[in-house]
Amino acid sequence: MAQLISSSSSLTIFSRNKPYLKPFNQCSMSFSTSAACNSSTYPFRKLFLQRQKPRKSLVLQVSAVSTSIETPVQTSSGEPSKPQRVMVIGGDGYCGWATALHLSKKGYEVAIVDNLIRRLFDHQLGLDSLTPISSIQNRIHCWKSLTGKSIELYIGDICDFEFLTETFKSFEPDAVVHFGEQRSAPYSMIDRPRAVFTQQNNVIGTLNVLFAIKEFREHCHLVKLGTMGEYGTPNIDIEEGYITITHNGRTDTLPYPKQASSFYHLSKVHDSHNIAFTCKAWGIRATDLNQGVVYGVRTDATAMHEELCNRFDYDGIFGTALNRFCVQAAVGHPLTVYGKGGQTRGYLDIRDTVQCVELAIANPANPGEFRVFNQFTEQFSVNQLAALVTKAGGKLGLNVETITVPNPRVEAEEHYYNAKHTKLVELGLKPHLLSDSLLDSLLNFAIQYKDRVDRKQIMPSVSWRKIGVKPKTVTA
Amino acid sequence: MAQLISSSSSLTIFSRNKPYLKPFNQCSMSFSTSAACNSSTYPFRKLFLQRQKPRKSLVLQVSAVSTSIETPVQTSSGEPSKPQRVMVIGGDGYCGWATALHLSKKGYEVAIVDNLIRRLFDHQLGLDSLTPISSIQNRIHCWKSLTGKSIELYIGDICDFEFLTETFKSFEPDAVVHFGEQRSAPYSMIDRPRAVFTQQNNVIGTLNVLFAIKEFREHCHLVKLGTMGEYGTPNIDIEEGYITITHNGRTDTLPYPKQASSFYHLSKVHDSHNIAFTCKAWGIRATDLNQGVVYGVRTDATAMHEELCNRFDYDGIFGTALNRFCVQAAVGHPLTVYGKGGQTRGYLDIRDTVQCVELAIANPANPGEFRVFNQFTEQFSVNQLAALVTKAGGKLGLNVETITVPNPRVEAEEHYYNAKHTKLVELGLKPHLLSDSLLDSLLNFAIQYKDRVDRKQIMPSVSWRKIGVKPKTVTA
Repeated sequence: MAQLISSSSSLTIFSRNKPYLKPFNQCSMSFSTSAACNSSTYPFRKLFLQRQKPRKSLVLQVSAVSTSIETPVQTSSGEPSKPQRVMVIGGDGYCGWATALHLSKKGYEVAIVDNLIRRLFDHQLGLDSLTPISSIQNRIHCWKSLTGKSIELYIGDICDFEFLTETFKSFEPDAVVHFGEQRSAPYSMIDRPRAVFTQQNNVIGTLNVLFAIKEFREHCHLVKLGTMGEYGTPNIDIEEGYITITHNGRTDTLPYPKQASSFYHLSKVHDSHNIAFTCKAWGIRATDLNQGVVYGVRTDATAMHEELCNRFDYDGIFGTALNRFCVQAAVGHPLTVYGKGGQTRGYLDIRDTVQCVELAIANPANPGEFRVFNQFTEQFSVNQLAALVTKAGGKLGLNVETITVPNPRVEAEEHYYNAKHTKLVELGLKPHLLSDSLLDSLLNFAIQYKDRVDRKQIMPSVSWRKIGVKPKTVTA
Repeated sequence: MAQLISSSSSLTIFSRNKPYLKPFNQCSMSFSTSAACNSSTYPFRKLFLQRQKPRKSLVLQVSAVSTSIETPVQTSSGEPSKPQRVMVIGGDGYCGWATALHLSKKGYEVAIVDNLIRRLFDHQLGLDSLTPISSIQNRIHCWKSLTGKSIELYIGDICDFEFLTETFKSFEPDAVVHFGEQRSAPYSMIDRPRAVFTQQNNVIGTLNVLFAIKEFREHCHLVKLGTMGEYGTPNIDIEEGYITITHNGRTDTLPYPKQASSFYHLSKVHDSHNIAFTCKAWGIRATDLNQGVVYGVRTDATAMHEELCNRFDYDGIFGTALNRFCVQAAVGHPLTVYGKGGQTRGYLDIRDTVQCVELAIANPANPGEFRVFNQFTEQFSVNQLAALVTKAGGKLGLNVETITVPNPRVEAEEHYYNAKHTKLVELGLKPHLLSDSLLDSLLNFAIQYKDRVDRKQIMPSVSWRKIGVKPKTVTA
């Protein structure tokens, strides 16, 4: 924490193709009221935006603000542990932003590392969050003004190892939560360049994080977001990362076989293998969170001010099934079930995502341990989701219909599915159940913002089988 | 075959960062004697080398030579099939060159696609093949002069999709044999840049090949070189790609769990998952050859002339265990066993590598099938290899000693190992056994070229645990 308790700090901008900034909040000022949550009142905004242009190395001396710690974090054994320094890579995204705020609220020192490319994807594809979202700078500024807590901001690309090195040397994380990947299966199936981008970005970014931990913070715990989609839909129970196999009279516990079904899901499989190897070879401590499909908007922290509002994707590329169904119900669009609708997956509320990540950090893996948790709370088929939304919509006076559309994916539409998910519950996870969340964190948001819905974005536009080699330059 | 039977063809050089050439042999001439196997007599050599410099697009009209087909290829059912067009990616490498010649000798139309970077690795690391090897241009020219058979040559990087597209459109392969990967585990563990290079090069190159097949040659059969190292050393029998698991009363056949032990081996695991997905999603037909450790120099084809001689690596980076032991025996250096020496792996003679690839091509996978063969003939521990070399050396009057050196790798040094390898035998593989090969294809070469041995290259120079983030610029 040396750089936070010092009386001055530096903001350095490098001359590079991928410009980046050292901690944004090291040059922040004090704000005392939520009225300060307005971009026009933020005195460094202009400076910040100007500094993103590449220029020769420049060091500005500015005053730093130390951060107060409010809430000691409890481990599962009940003993208070020292507050930890958590780097949230991809902290401007859907899960990342909610997690960064939750951890800050719980007393962790938090830094966000993000290249903001998720916002660029929206621009390029003509998409937008249902909920209006503020810039990352205004979000962090608002959080500071509401809570007094600073979140450091490093803008850059973790595939650039020189940038990542600077973030590690500057922030000195005890845990890294890695959401910093291209996370949409349909995006990875748009065209060859995006398939290649997804695997390159995700795999190399994670390799760099592993090397940074080995080189600069050997005790640092990597909490990596994987996906339940890595497992596919085997005809046997899905275990948490490993399976004990007896074969020809001998027994071993081996990594659970993976059958991913998009270039995105495959990138996470590759990550898992790479991380497991470095745990064994270098003694890295890592937790792989194989997350289900996340739904919902609100967490306790993001609900504190509209400038903190999280993104909510409903489009055919980034929208997850349940979020999309709620938007469809709100605007009177039939729910679009892909194919037979028997596709069954694990689901969880975003309030449980942030709980799970906190539990993983508070109860770290041991050195050399590659720990896998299946991170979801309930499992549903698509048809079951449609029925639940129809029923809940009815209570709000909505007339919800369902249609079948040709499945753009290649996947089993009727299959066995039974995935274990006990490890996080054993650590203390208290699930939010969908039956409660549908009304208070989903349909209400969809109705509140229904005038912002672009109905053209709802239908699937990406085909697993028709992916071509050339860049797709025109959106549907 | 349109471009081969036409009376003229074009040689095009593009202005690019990575310059490449269209079929080299389309502008070749006839040679009738082996005396023509000399670079000074090759009339296009100078032109060729000049043309590798980037320049603006340039088209030369030159006469083309049609290729005679000598030997019909037999399928396992005994029926002759039409000669096929086989693209050998990485055809200038150790296994690739031997395979390209073998297939050409057997009547296939062969094209080599290679960026020749394996030769660059030697320059950069100060290494050299024990056997002197000719340039790829001279090799192909010599082959033509000896046999009358043309091998087309495309020089470029398959990670450059525009280049790969040109090769597919020009050559129109019926099968692609993909050796075009960085294939050394120690190389991938030298430093972070080389770890990243290995995964990026191998994974993206293979993705590009899959997209090229989908887009341009849907019926084309991909024969991909994997490695037995993908499996690691589980405590149960290793099956050929898949394992049937009964778990909690249900049964499924799933991909065999992978536990790779270097960034190189991991890249092959990633490839296998990517290929399996495209077989399912796009109907690609693919054979993954999980090859053991290859030994030996000579095949029937490479033995025809010294200009065709294959490379033979004995150094700590690219040298495989048995090749290295033979060189050590020849020069009176103790055999270097890493650690306890109980490390057991599958091994095969390079004459069986070329047989296996031919069998895979002649008996292609079905559309949508991802077929996995374990490609080795015998399994040995390192200690067993040392004992065999000591005994064979004794017959030649060599006094062979063995020493233990600290294991630079992270691996089990005593373990169960029983890997299945029946599928290629069922297709007709007739193995060469090590006991016969040691004298006629290994120790004799090592002794013949012992004056070329650089003893500094023999000891391991790369540590799995000490890999750093910065480029290693000085060789050991």
